[in-house]
Parts: sequence; C-alpha cells; structure tokens
Amino acid sequence: MKLAILLAATLLSAQTKPRARDLGIAFEGTPGKLNSVTDVPGVEVGHATLNRGAAKEAVRTGVTVVWPRGRANPEAAFSGWYSLNGNGEMTGTTWLEESGFLESPVMITNTHSVGVVRDAFIAWNVEQAKKGAGGGLNAWGLPVVAETYDGFLNDINGFHVKPGDVAFALENAKGGPVAEGNVGGGTGMTCYGFKGGIGTSSRIVGGYTVGALVQCNCGRRNQLMITGVPVGREISDNLPFTPKPTASVRVPGIHEDLGSIIIVVATDAPLLPHQLKRLARRAAMGLARTGSTSGNGSGDIFIAFSTANQGAAAESGVTAISWLPNGDLTPFFDATVQATEEAIVNALVAAETMVGINGNTVPALPTDQLRAILTKYNRLAR
Amino acid sequence: MKLAILLAATLLSAQTKPRARDLGIAFEGTPGKLNSVTDVPGVEVGHATLNRGAAKEAVRTGVTVVWPRGRANPEAAFSGWYSLNGNGEMTGTTWLEESGFLESPVMITNTHSVGVVRDAFIAWNVEQAKKGAGGGLNAWGLPVVAETYDGFLNDINGFHVKPGDVAFALENAKGGPVAEGNVGGGTGMTCYGFKGGIGTSSRIVGGYTVGALVQCNCGRRNQLMITGVPVGREISDNLPFTPKPTASVRVPGIHEDLGSIIIVVATDAPLLPHQLKRLARRAAMGLARTGSTSGNGSGDIFIAFSTANQGAAAESGVTAISWLPNGDLTPFFDATVQATEEAIVNALVAAETMVGINGNTVPALPTDQLRAILTKYNRLAR
Amino acid sequence: MKLAILLAATLLSAQTKPRARDLGIAFEGTPGKLNSVTDVPGVEVGHATLNRGAAKEAVRTGVTVVWPRGRANPEAAFSGWYSLNGNGEMTGTTWLEESGFLESPVMITNTHSVGVVRDAFIAWNVEQAKKGAGGGLNAWGLPVVAETYDGFLNDINGFHVKPGDVAFALENAKGGPVAEGNVGGGTGMTCYGFKGGIGTSSRIVGGYTVGALVQCNCGRRNQLMITGVPVGREISDNLPFTPKPTASVRVPGIHEDLGSIIIVVATDAPLLPHQLKRLARRAAMGLARTGSTSGNGSGDIFIAFSTANQGAAAESGVTAISWLPNGDLTPFFDATVQATEEAIVNALVAAETMVGINGNTVPALPTDQLRAILTKYNRLAR
Amino acid sequence: MKLAILLAATLLSAQTKPRARDLGIAFEGTPGKLNSVTDVPGVEVGHATLNRGAAKEAVRTGVTVVWPRGRANPEAAFSGWYSLNGNGEMTGTTWLEESGFLESPVMITNTHSVGVVRDAFIAWNVEQAKKGAGGGLNAWGLPVVAETYDGFLNDINGFHVKPGDVAFALENAKGGPVAEGNVGGGTGMTCYGFKGGIGTSSRIVGGYTVGALVQCNCGRRNQLMITGVPVGREISDNLPFTPKPTASVRVPGIHEDLGSIIIVVATDAPLLPHQLKRLARRAAMGLARTGSTSGNGSGDIFIAFSTANQGAAAESGVTAISWLPNGDLTPFFDATVQATEEAIVNALVAAETMVGINGNTVPALPTDQLRAILTKYNRLAR
Repeated sequence: MKLAILLAATLLSAQTKPRARDLGIAFEGTPGKLNSVTDVPGVEVGHATLNRGAAKEAVRTGVTVVWPRGRANPEAAFSGWYSLNGNGEMTGTTWLEESGFLESPVMITNTHSVGVVRDAFIAWNVEQAKKGAGGGLNAWGLPVVAETYDGFLNDINGFHVKPGDVAFALENAKGGPVAEGNVGGGTGMTCYGFKGGIGTSSRIVGGYTVGALVQCNCGRRNQLMITGVPVGREISDNLPFTPKPTASVRVPGIHEDLGSIIIVVATDAPLLPHQLKRLARRAAMGLARTGSTSGNGSGDIFIAFSTANQGAAAESGVTAISWLPNGDLTPFFDATVQATEEAIVNALVAAETMVGINGNTVPALPTDQLRAILTKYNRLAR
Repeated sequence: MKLAILLAATLLSAQTKPRARDLGIAFEGTPGKLNSVTDVPGVEVGHATLNRGAAKEAVRTGVTVVWPRGRANPEAAFSGWYSLNGNGEMTGTTWLEESGFLESPVMITNTHSVGVVRDAFIAWNVEQAKKGAGGGLNAWGLPVVAETYDGFLNDINGFHVKPGDVAFALENAKGGPVAEGNVGGGTGMTCYGFKGGIGTSSRIVGGYTVGALVQCNCGRRNQLMITGVPVGREISDNLPFTPKPTASVRVPGIHEDLGSIIIVVATDAPLLPHQLKRLARRAAMGLARTGSTSGNGSGDIFIAFSTANQGAAAESGVTAISWLPNGDLTPFFDATVQATEEAIVNALVAAETMVGINGNTVPALPTDQLRAILTKYNRLAR
Repeated sequence: MKLAILLAATLLSAQTKPRARDLGIAFEGTPGKLNSVTDVPGVEVGHATLNRGAAKEAVRTGVTVVWPRGRANPEAAFSGWYSLNGNGEMTGTTWLEESGFLESPVMITNTHSVGVVRDAFIAWNVEQAKKGAGGGLNAWGLPVVAETYDGFLNDINGFHVKPGDVAFALENAKGGPVAEGNVGGGTGMTCYGFKGGIGTSSRIVGGYTVGALVQCNCGRRNQLMITGVPVGREISDNLPFTPKPTASVRVPGIHEDLGSIIIVVATDAPLLPHQLKRLARRAAMGLARTGSTSGNGSGDIFIAFSTANQGAAAESGVTAISWLPNGDLTPFFDATVQATEEAIVNALVAAETMVGINGNTVPALPTDQLRAILTKYNRLAR
Repeated sequence: MKLAILLAATLLSAQTKPRARDLGIAFEGTPGKLNSVTDVPGVEVGHATLNRGAAKEAVRTGVTVVWPRGRANPEAAFSGWYSLNGNGEMTGTTWLEESGFLESPVMITNTHSVGVVRDAFIAWNVEQAKKGAGGGLNAWGLPVVAETYDGFLNDINGFHVKPGDVAFALENAKGGPVAEGNVGGGTGMTCYGFKGGIGTSSRIVGGYTVGALVQCNCGRRNQLMITGVPVGREISDNLPFTPKPTASVRVPGIHEDLGSIIIVVATDAPLLPHQLKRLARRAAMGLARTGSTSGNGSGDIFIAFSTANQGAAAESGVTAISWLPNGDLTPFFDATVQATEEAIVNALVAAETMVGINGNTVPALPTDQLRAILTKYNRLAR
C-alpha cells in the first residue's frame, strides 16, 4: 500500500520523496485529501525558489506565498496572530490585530528580504489595480510579510530576492499538492539540525478543514521529538557543518540562537478574529510536541485565518456573517496542534541535504534511521 | 429654556441638581433622550448606596451594577476591555478577552470589596438558577467586578459591603434616568479634588446609541479641564482636607497617587469583540480631555459591550450574527470620547460635598464658580 | 538506589508515595535538591486542605499559597503572566502587568472561592500591618488569586472556603518538601481523567533554580502523554464516574469542557518583568508535552516571578538592580518547560483516588500500569 | 521679546518661522533648552527631504531617522511601544516587545516605502560592519520603520525613496535644533486639514528630560483643539483642495479615513521596557488633547525609549542596571502628554502651504488667525 501512496504522490507533484505519514509515523487525527493547507477550499500556495551558484555566491532562498482565497479573490479574511517568541518579523500585524482582517496573502522569505517583498507586493498590487485585475484591496497596503534566517546556507547579504521573484510566487500560486522542503522561502532553512523548509498538513473537523503551512528553521538537534520519540538524541552525529568554523559562524541546530518558525493556520470554519488568535496560540503547542522550547533567538510567529464570511470586509453597512461559538472550538484546537506537528515533520522529511554558502552543509533527516528509531520505541504505525 | 430642562430633569428622577449640560457647558455631539447609558435599549443600572455613621465609623461606599440586557435577560454580550493604567482590579477579564463575551453584569465597588461582590454574585446566580429564574448563565461563573478606592471618606477596612447589598443592586436595577454622584459604588469617591462618583452620558450615532457610565475617583485638582478650560487651575482653593493630617493620610486630588476611574461603554450597534476593544481604548481619550494623565496610582480600566447579536452566545452550532464593518466605526469612536468626557463632568456636577471617616471632607464642584470660569474663557454655551 | 530515594522522600515529608521520577520516568534536565518550587531560596508554600463530609455534603477543596520571598518578607517580586486560554480567573493581573510586580503571595483555590480568598488576604494583611508585622505591602491591595473548578468532587456551591482557611495557608507556609496531590487548592481536582491536584518540580540552570508548582485540573484522558508516551490512550478504562449520570453532570476527563491548570514558575535568576512573561509563556509548552491542547473550557493561566532584586520595589529614587540579558535565557526556557511537565506528572502520581459529592469518583493514576506502559514503549529510565 | 526669540531660532537653525510657544500658546510644563527631542542627551535626528517636480511627478516625501544614542553608538536601548489604532505599520515591534530593546534607529517614511527603508538600513548596517564602523548591532536585524500616508501630495506609487536617501538621513543625523514641518518623512503630510509633518518638543522632569518627535498626518479639521481651544471649528474654510475632485480622491482633514501619526518618546531616565510602554500609552493622551479620536483609518503607533542603562544589552552575564520605581513615574506621564501635545502643534506651526501631485494643495495653519482665536478664548499667554 505504501507503494501506491508513493506513486500517487509522484503523480500529484514533482515531490518524489514519501511524506512523513508514508513512513509509518503515527500522527493523531484525520488529514484532508492532500494533507495540505490547500485542503482548505480556495487556499493557494506559490513558491519562488532561488537555488543557484556555489561557494561565496550560493543563493539559497526564495519566497512562499499563501493566498487565503486564491489569487483571483483578494478579499480580506478574518484573521488573528500570535508571537510565541518575537525574535522575527511579521509586518502588517498591527492592522491585522486592530481590524481583524488579513488584507494580503501571507508572504514568507528570508530575514533580509522582508522589505523588498513588502514593497514589491504593494507595487504589484498597484499594477493589478491599473489593469483592472485583482481589485478589492485597499488603495494603500499593509501587507503581511514574515521571515526566517537562512544565512548559514544563503548569501543573505547579497539581497538576492527581487520584485520579479515576488510577482512569480504571487502569480504562480495554485491549489492542489504543495511542494515541501527546499522550496520557496524555505529553500535555505535548517530545523533541529536537519535540513528544514516548507511543510504542510491538514485535519478534518466535522465538515470543516484546518490546514497548516510552516517555514521551519528552528530548534536544536537534541530537542527533536517525533510523535513523542526523542529522535534528536538518537541521532547525535550527522550535524550541520562549516568547512572553516570561526567564532562568527553560528551553526544552526548546535548554537541555539539561530532559528525561527513561521506557522500559517487556515480554516474554512466561520471563526471570528478573536477565535483565530486562539488557533494561532495553539500552533505553539504543536511546535512544543516536536521538542522546541522556543529559544531566545527564535522568531516563532503564527497567523491564522478563516476563508468563511466572504463579504464581511464590506466598506460600510451592517453585514450578516456567521460564526461558530466558543463551545465548538476544542476540536479545532486539537486539529491545529496536530496539523502543525505533522507539517513540521513533513518539512524535515521532504527536505534534502544542501550545500550552501562557503560550503556550509546541512544534512537531510535520514528516513531509514528515523524508521529504525521509531521501531525501537514501538511507535511505528503498523 | 434652561428652566424647562431643569424641570424635566426633576420630573425624571430624584436628582434635583442640574446636570452639566444644563449649566451651559458646550459638549460636542448629540446625546440620547436621557443622556445616559440607559439610552442603550435594555441596559439597566442598579445602585446599593451605603451612607451611614460618622467619625471612625463612617460608611461611605456601595455597589453599582450595569446589566447589559437587563436583569431579566442574562445572556452574554460581545465585549472588549482595555487597561490604560492597571493600578486597579477588574475580575473576569481573561475570559472576556478569550471568549469575546461579557457573561455577567458589570459590578463596581470599592477596592477591598471586590471579592465579596464577586462571590456574592455567583451565589445569587446559583440561587436564581435554583428558582428557575435567570438561567442562561454558565454553571460556573467568572463575573466582572471592578473597583476604585474610597478610603479617604469610607471605613474601607471595615469591609461593609455585604452579599445583601450586591443582591439589592442586582435586583433593583432598572432603565430610565440614572442617579449620579454620591451613589452606589461611587458613594465615597473623589475626582480632581472634588467630590466624584457615578456619572453617565450618551451619544446618538445614526440609528445607534453609545452610552458611558463612569465611577470616577481620579485626577489632581490642577489637571481638571472642562471643554478645554483649565477649571482646576482656576479653583486652587477649596481642596479636600483632613482634620488631622499625618504622613499616612494621602489626600486625593492633592497627593497624586490616589484615584482610579472605571468606565463602562455600552452600545446597541452590532460590534464584534475586537471592535469593542477599540471603543474601550477611546475611553482613555475622553478621560484625557478632562485633564488626567493617568497617574501611576490610578486604576484606569475600561470595558465596552454591545447589546446587539442576541443569541450569539449559543452553546453550539453555526450562528448568524451581524456586524458593522471597521469603515463605519469612526463616529462611534467620536461618541465614546464625547460620552466619556461628559459622564465625568456629570459625576462632578451631581456629587455633593461629603464628610467621611475621621471628618475627612471632599467639597462639591461649585457650579456657580464653574459657570463664571467658563464665561471668562468664552466657553459657556449661548 | 531507587529504594534510597524512596526512603529519603519518606524522611523528608509525610508524602509516602514515590514521586514520578522515583518510578523511573525519564525526565530531561537536572532537578534541584527537593525537585520542588521551594528549591528556589525563600519560596514558601502553604496548604489549607478541606476534606470532610460525604454524599451531598462532601467538602473537597482548599487553598494553596506560594509566598515568593517567604511569609516574613512580603516585599514585591518582579513578575510576568500569560493566559494560554483564559477560561479562568487570576485576579491582580492588570496591576502585575502594569507595574511588573507581584505584590502578594500567589493564592490558588476553587472557582467559587476566589472572592473570599481575595478579600480575606486583604483583611489579614490589614491585621498584620496593625500588629506591625509583615508591612511593606501597600495600604490597599490587588492580590493575585487564581482558581480551577472542583465541582465534580466538591460541594462548590456550599462556599466552604472561609477567611480562616486563607489565614491558615498563609501562616503555615514553609520551605522544604511540598505536599502534592489531594492537598490545598488541589484537593478536589481532576487531570486527564485521573485524580490531579498540586504538583511541583524544579531545574538547576547554572547557579540558578527554576521551580514550578501546578494546580492541575485539565485534559481529557486520551490526551495524556508522559515523556512522549501515549499513556492516556493505553488506559482507556478506569474513568471518572458518577453514580447518577444526568445531562447536567459533566465528567472531567471525558467531557472536554471541564478543567483548567494554574502554573506558578519561580526563579532566583535576576529576570525583569518582560522576561518573566517569556517564562510564563513557556509553561504552555510544558503543558503541551503532557498532551493538552488547552480546550475551550480550560482556564490555563500562568505566572512567573523572580526572587532576585530584593529592594527593587522601592517607593522612590533610582535603584540599582541586576538582570540577565536575553541571550542567556534559553536554558531558563528549557527549565520552565521541563519543570512544568514534571510537576504535572508529579501531581498525577501523588494524588489518590477520591470519592466526592454525590459519590462522584475520580481514580488515581495506577502507577504499576504506568510503569508497564513506559516499558512497552522503551521509555523507562534504566 | 518675541523678536529676540525669533532671532535666536534663526541663529539656531534654518527654521525661520516662530514655533508654537513663540506665538504665545500657553503650554503646560517646562521644556528643555531646545524644546526638542534632542534635549535628551545623545539623541540625533536626521532628515532626507524629497521635494521636487510638480503635477503628476510631484515628489513630496522623505525619511526621518531618530538615533537613540547617536549614530556613533548603535547600542540597543530599552524600549516599549503601543498601538492606539493600528491602521499603519511599525516593523520590528515583535522583537522590541519580546526583548525590551530598540536595536535600530526609529525610521519614519511614507506607507509605500517602509520596505525599502527597512532593507536599506540592513544593507547600510552590513556595510558599516564591514568598514569596522558602527558595530554592536546584531548580525541580522529587525529594524524599526514606521510610516504615514502622503498620497494626497506625493506620487506615492512612484516609490521615490531610495536606499541612498536612507543612508543620507542616517549619516546626517545630528543633535541640536531639529527642522520641523515639511521635512524628512513629514514632507508630504497633512494634519487636521492643515499642512503637517515633523514636530518636536521636550519637558524637564527633575534631572531628566522627556522628548517627543511626531510625524503627524492625522485628524479632521473640525477636531483641532489647541490648549483646549476649538481652533478647527473656528477655521472652517481654507481646507485642503484638489483641482479635479473624483470619488477616488480622498481629501485629508475632510474625509476622515486618511491620516496617521507616529510618535517617538525619548528619555534619559532609567526606565525599564514595561515602564516605557506606559509612556508610549500616554502619547495617546497628548494626541487626544489636540482633538483626535483616532479614527478608523488612522495608524496611530507610538514608541518610547530610554537612553539610560548603556551596557544593558550585553550578550551574556548578569549586568547591573538602574531603574526608577513606578512610584516616581507620574511626572513622566505628565511630561509625555505635554510634550506630545506641543510637538503636534509645533509641526502645524512650522509647516508651510504645499502644492503637490495633480495640484492638490494643503494650506498652512494661519498663525495670525490662530493668535486671534486664542485671544477670543482668553488663552493667549500674556
């Protein structure tokens, strides 16, 4: 059966590696059809992946874009956010908090490219408005752009992300299977001392879906837990390395102060802004299940949005909306925790070993070894 | 015409003094019929006033209760809150913030009686449930109880507020004109070095009403501004006094560290929790117009609720609600600022000179002198 | 060696059951001497345990008090707090947030007794001041009182906690070993469908200590994880039960909406208020490791304080203090997560089966079965 | 005497217009020597002013930079922030909130140039590090960049702010008198329907200074109050105008939804992060005194920092710092409110009439008329 799943995965996307669940990891809950944030109807994901050059000129970075309602429908979506450890950037959050709305796609890149992505989105949006396309977005914009730091593998001070890359990610976003691992904003990221990057997962809650997408770049090796098993402590070798270690080179997964994780939670359940903040807060609990304690240097910032209530962002006048009362939320909290946990593991399983700037190298999580460890702890799904 | 207004005021309530507006003070905006928080349909206010004894046994305190939907309808109301300077207590706010709901009346008392009011409300509520009355409230409760400090006039360490007083305020709440000044929780309060207490006001916004009720106990004399006129600096005598000043007696209005103000904002506009928080934040701007800078010792805590969306607090299942988009909110912000400002001045105008514990005395704002000062600054309404 | 530990534990306290670590559970990190919040020098804990009567008159409740600097030193301590899911009460937090100080002990009781504990502390404090004892506390008080709901076992609407019980807990607080399980505020609590209550643990970080004390009353049975092992799913029988189930009786550990956990984190490291908030936020990650997703009905509220910087709460004048820069905090985050996780398990291991109101019963966690399950998953410490 | 003051002002700076205080406006409190944020020792301000072209190509924008400790000392400063109405952007605030530190200068520009300013600062900083200059800043950066919207006068979608402009403002920052009005980030701003922009003021508090700098672009004409006098209602003509009004052109000061104000509060008093947040919150009260109710469309975001505690941002190890207890803060709150109020009026008085994009025009506040109105209300200082 696993072969069939692998085959299906191959047909669905360019992604040829199995996903975490295919390895027999026993996650809780019921995923959606694609086990992806795109199981939430309307959500589209686009990547611009910059992976070229070597040695001093290694470019290992990009942009990942999540459109709440798809590129063709820029209407705002109810949203909430939470900063578990704010050693990072997510622009646009003061207005998101005030208004209750996400008024742009969520865009994720590297730390030093947040500005170019932000302004490029505004310029792109102005162009769309001139063409009569898009529309619906405000004349001025406060877009949401987040980041994690890829300077161990990427020439981050080369400022390689350009406006055209942002436009590419925006315009090539689509539903369906989402490429994971070394793609988009996640191209050069490191997670628990293994190659990290983009991962996604979803859960079904009654007639609704909760999806998560992560750009994971956090954690120390010895912290990594997968379904409760201390995988990181079992693989104490095979660490990221730098050919010429110096005091100024901090190795992610070993030196604790590098890292960060951005988590995007999407749902089609009709939740209000203050409820979506509750979902965002649960992403921290999914992260905790993978072993992180959210170290001082980690920018762990989470955002949740609902694609329901199309039309709520009217300019004026009483508007009818719907909501799910607080008493119904616990299964959505469970789903957020579970989808976040699995999305992180999916990123680790999908990412491949990468050699980056100055020959710095981060190994992929060895999946055979992972299976052996899960077996040792009697935690491999039958 | 002023006589006619005074007459109307007399007929409407036992309150025989004119209100601020009757004195010719030129407030902005259009008040509701009663210029009171009870102009918001359904809102009921109840006072238990404890004013007895003298010298060491002076009891000058009480409880004021604001029922969002009236006593007969205990259903929760969407709500938000804001702490401008948290040197005070408002219980129940973590759940209010989390759930978006106010699930009890707002109850206001003195600093040392918050506990008895809180538990007494729960006990009263349990009794109501046994009688089959009320109902609708949760089996366990996290009621909202706030306070300001009346120890300059009241024997606060005598703990004179009793469960029966809480029940009295709850059960005798009603719509219509609201007694102001030395009543309920405001009985022993001091504001800008004059006798303060309870005040209320309202504004009309389109088809909606915004009302404010304050328990004001804040500010130094020289700060007091009324419609922009530096009234406090013009009345530098006539200060609160204590017959036997000692180092341990701090005189409100002179020693800056006493004080506090609780502001309750009500509206029938269909606002969501995150929007009501925005209203609560504007109460600070209304307070600022009366001269306060929210000193370190002042517990300036504000709550706003909406009586719309009856039925939103369903236990389970998608519920249809309505809301007013953010683009329509500015007039509600204006109204909150204006109603807060006028409610504070109403409290000052209504309150009468009080002699309290140990002969401590706080003078009423002299309204003739106030009119003369407003005339001097060309600010008396024609 | 385990026998020696058991013996030591017996000598140190009346607590005759082994603690979680004695059972061979492989927690991370290095605990302090007592593996208790009282390893932080100065911290004292007091319990008033009310456990009497049966059937309709079963009293199963109490008060637990944590004095930051011990009863003899009421000086304020730098502090921060965090509400993971605010379906609960913690009074005093607006001032704690504003001032950065915890100005009272942390007191924990049942949901319907928060008020009596609050006012009783103020009255007790007034008495102390009259006696010339204590002192240092403000003339008026905004004490910190938190709660979890024990109505499944306790006659909560009998309001059995009295001022004398509060005084008892305050006056009998001490350092040294802390009684765990069915004691103090934790007497009637249920956690993951097992008997819960008070638990504590500590970690050493360099020359400092981080301690945690929990009053745990949260979680559904099938969520319980211990060091990553799905213990709750392995023990699907042996649930809490009620002799006469009715629609209105909600069984904790099964019906998700009951529950809550209060977590107190203490340290002697010189951390500032905004850093202590960071510690409080990590308590959520320790909780997550035991399986909770912080359901809608759970009041999960955390507080952290530092006993360093004695003298910082001066009335006036520039004061010299010390602090540990942010770059040093990660090990304290690790310690908070680890101590929280172990404190919860300690509460479960210490608590004994209890029969409460109306014969409602909550079973103790069966420790033999627990060891067998840990063995099955190869997670028992050697 | 006024001539002498004018002469002094001329000698001190290129600014030839009198400042608000020179007109006889009776502000409260005692300003520092320059009545400027640069009265706080170490603070330096730099402007890049882009004012060129006309009609469709009118560039009316720029960048203003506030270095907390001067350009030569990039060490972080304790800081806090507050969003009164988050319809705007201030990057870097999640880390500021988490860490308690401002790690970059505060940079202010137009809404569509936040990104370029952010990334340009990082690139500039990287260059400085390469040169061995600057230093002390983190290898990666989360700079603080804020904005207000100048699209009524400026070709905002031309994206005219370039990295070189950012470098110019950074490198030409200096202490001493600060140019006000149509300069730097304030070049194209409108405030209460008059030309706005940059303004500054300061207050002395004991041996300390509190300074404020605003980029003001907020408010409707009829709201404007100056020292309590309803100036805006007295000048109902002389409004901003557009030669070709269309539905899509929103005129600031008339249509309420344009606007915003950024307020920077600086002090040399040794305040901790949570105390600086308290100062930031008071900026709202200073703004309120000028008439604003912080309309929905206004991005009113405030930041406060302290230049004391040089060395506190150590990488590691216990560090001795000092602080001023909460009981001493009230005069700092007063000073923040007063300096904010005066800085806004200073911006209005300094700014000159501007013709911008498409001939859109915003008039300067007519100072003769202002003096006449203040006289009418008996509020001109003698």
